[in-house]
Amino acid sequence: MEATRRKFLTSSRNGILTIGLFPLWTGPTTAWAQSDPLPSWNETASKAAIVSFVGRVTKQGSADFVPDAERVAVFDNDGTLWVEHPMYTQLAFALDRVKTLAPQHPEWKDTQPFKAVLDGDMKALAASGEKGLLELIMLTHAGMTTTEFKKVVTDWLSTARDPKFKRPYTELVYQPMVELMAYLRANGFKTFIVSGGGVEFMRPWTEKAYGVPPEQVIGSSIKTEFRMQDDTPTLYRLPEVNFIDDKAGKPVGINEAIGQRPIAAFGNSDGDIEMLQWTTMAGAPARLGMLVHHTDADREYAYDRDTDFGRLDKALDAAAITGWTVIDMKADWKRVFKD
Amino acid sequence: MEATRRKFLTSSRNGILTIGLFPLWTGPTTAWAQSDPLPSWNETASKAAIVSFVGRVTKQGSADFVPDAERVAVFDNDGTLWVEHPMYTQLAFALDRVKTLAPQHPEWKDTQPFKAVLDGDMKALAASGEKGLLELIMLTHAGMTTTEFKKVVTDWLSTARDPKFKRPYTELVYQPMVELMAYLRANGFKTFIVSGGGVEFMRPWTEKAYGVPPEQVIGSSIKTEFRMQDDTPTLYRLPEVNFIDDKAGKPVGINEAIGQRPIAAFGNSDGDIEMLQWTTMAGAPARLGMLVHHTDADREYAYDRDTDFGRLDKALDAAAITGWTVIDMKADWKRVFKD
Repeated sequence: MEATRRKFLTSSRNGILTIGLFPLWTGPTTAWAQSDPLPSWNETASKAAIVSFVGRVTKQGSADFVPDAERVAVFDNDGTLWVEHPMYTQLAFALDRVKTLAPQHPEWKDTQPFKAVLDGDMKALAASGEKGLLELIMLTHAGMTTTEFKKVVTDWLSTARDPKFKRPYTELVYQPMVELMAYLRANGFKTFIVSGGGVEFMRPWTEKAYGVPPEQVIGSSIKTEFRMQDDTPTLYRLPEVNFIDDKAGKPVGINEAIGQRPIAAFGNSDGDIEMLQWTTMAGAPARLGMLVHHTDADREYAYDRDTDFGRLDKALDAAAITGWTVIDMKADWKRVFKD
Repeated sequence: MEATRRKFLTSSRNGILTIGLFPLWTGPTTAWAQSDPLPSWNETASKAAIVSFVGRVTKQGSADFVPDAERVAVFDNDGTLWVEHPMYTQLAFALDRVKTLAPQHPEWKDTQPFKAVLDGDMKALAASGEKGLLELIMLTHAGMTTTEFKKVVTDWLSTARDPKFKRPYTELVYQPMVELMAYLRANGFKTFIVSGGGVEFMRPWTEKAYGVPPEQVIGSSIKTEFRMQDDTPTLYRLPEVNFIDDKAGKPVGINEAIGQRPIAAFGNSDGDIEMLQWTTMAGAPARLGMLVHHTDADREYAYDRDTDFGRLDKALDAAAITGWTVIDMKADWKRVFKD
């Protein structure tokens, strides 16, 4: 690095540039001033796979070269970019919402799945099944305008704390993945989030946490309806599923929102299989598929084939066959969170 | 302009810059080298409204200042960015598709609405109503993968010619609007297309025609399904409506795809009313709503309240009340198309 820098300065001195003007000239400095863009990654096969892939697709004239406009990378959110245990953050939000709204709904004391939530009975909640959980989401996420919902999410995130780390949820994003996203963007990529989570639950904070603007967040959604209320246009959130952005829904959501096929995809669970297939099995040589494997019980959690949140089972088997890289959190990451 | 340039060079000579280095230093040159960014617009109220709006929202410290990240502009497509008469281009595409596919469907000779298309009987086609048109779109747009459909669209556009102008449809984009989009982008805006037309009909060509990448195109869509075919992942287009991005659907589509409210919206018909309401009636001072009024029978077409394609009736009445600017094509545009 230092040798390159010296060489550059020497040739500049002999050229039309002068040292006097140097501070103004900010063009190619990044080429030599750049330090390691992935400082939270250990020097293991995972980091090598990333750097090699980026090198190949950005090298003009290489057989693997991909033009800027086609450099699309997609990231699952829960368990890939931030913590998803002991439960999805959005579920923690929904449970808190039930408690907040309970005084206005005395009937919930005797109605499942609300009773289970208010009693803290996670077993009874699980027994209410997908139908119960869906009902919970609808009643806590719908029945208000998009503007109101955004405020509810933002307010909750500002006070809620993760039960294990005692930190705001938005601080529990994986620092190595944040670096990876920034590294890809610095190399001409557009980075999208493609999550089973609710799109309007994520958009209020993804720009700050990941550098991903609202229009690059794809997720599950409920239907909204345009309504004029007292001469003010609003979008009202209805208790009706619009789209489930999970499993085979992920490539569908990607196509609807992005309109082109990604060249890199990052997930951590069986819900990401189709997204990684769609991305990497395209017949082109340079495609990157990676799975975050939670192997670090000390610094975060260790789980894979047997968990309710973020099960990594079939995807782990598929990785060996398809050539997806499995990120070993414990071995590959120097740190999990920003200090 | 020339005075500004001279002044700049003079001050440079006296500063740390030297003329010798000048060709390398490409930073702020745009600030003075910039010529009129809207050369195809006459100096009328429409152009003044655009330039004034952009000036206000980009001026740091002004009460109307809007940060880069929130500078979102949305554009209807048919009749706002390209020609929509004598019929929507996508309908011309569907009719041609029927003729192309007819040999494989002998039954169409006796089945409406196909018979009407094959007989060139537009009256009978109109009589088949919305149901007939929808059936037409489904049968010509579905039943294949997204990759196949993209090729069909691209192939058709490369040979099809507009009946009046005898030019490829993608050349019949309005040059003043193309300049407007580029001007907004140069001022930190993201420009989105929000059209009632099919999103996958537009995406293959919007980047080249307007500088709008696929992920910034929002439109109507049919459902797609993820399928593994011989170990190859595909998205298969189903004959089922997914979303109609028109009228009250436009704000819904904007919210789903962009996740924030635009500050500028451009349309040309009653189908754009809700999009303009959602954009401009937000309580904030600096919002821009504009309607392209087709007033130029010589260079393009003249139509408004009484037409099947792009009816401008209620929106024209609303414009006067809401403060939307009506673009008078004949008076405001120096040229309609690129020569």
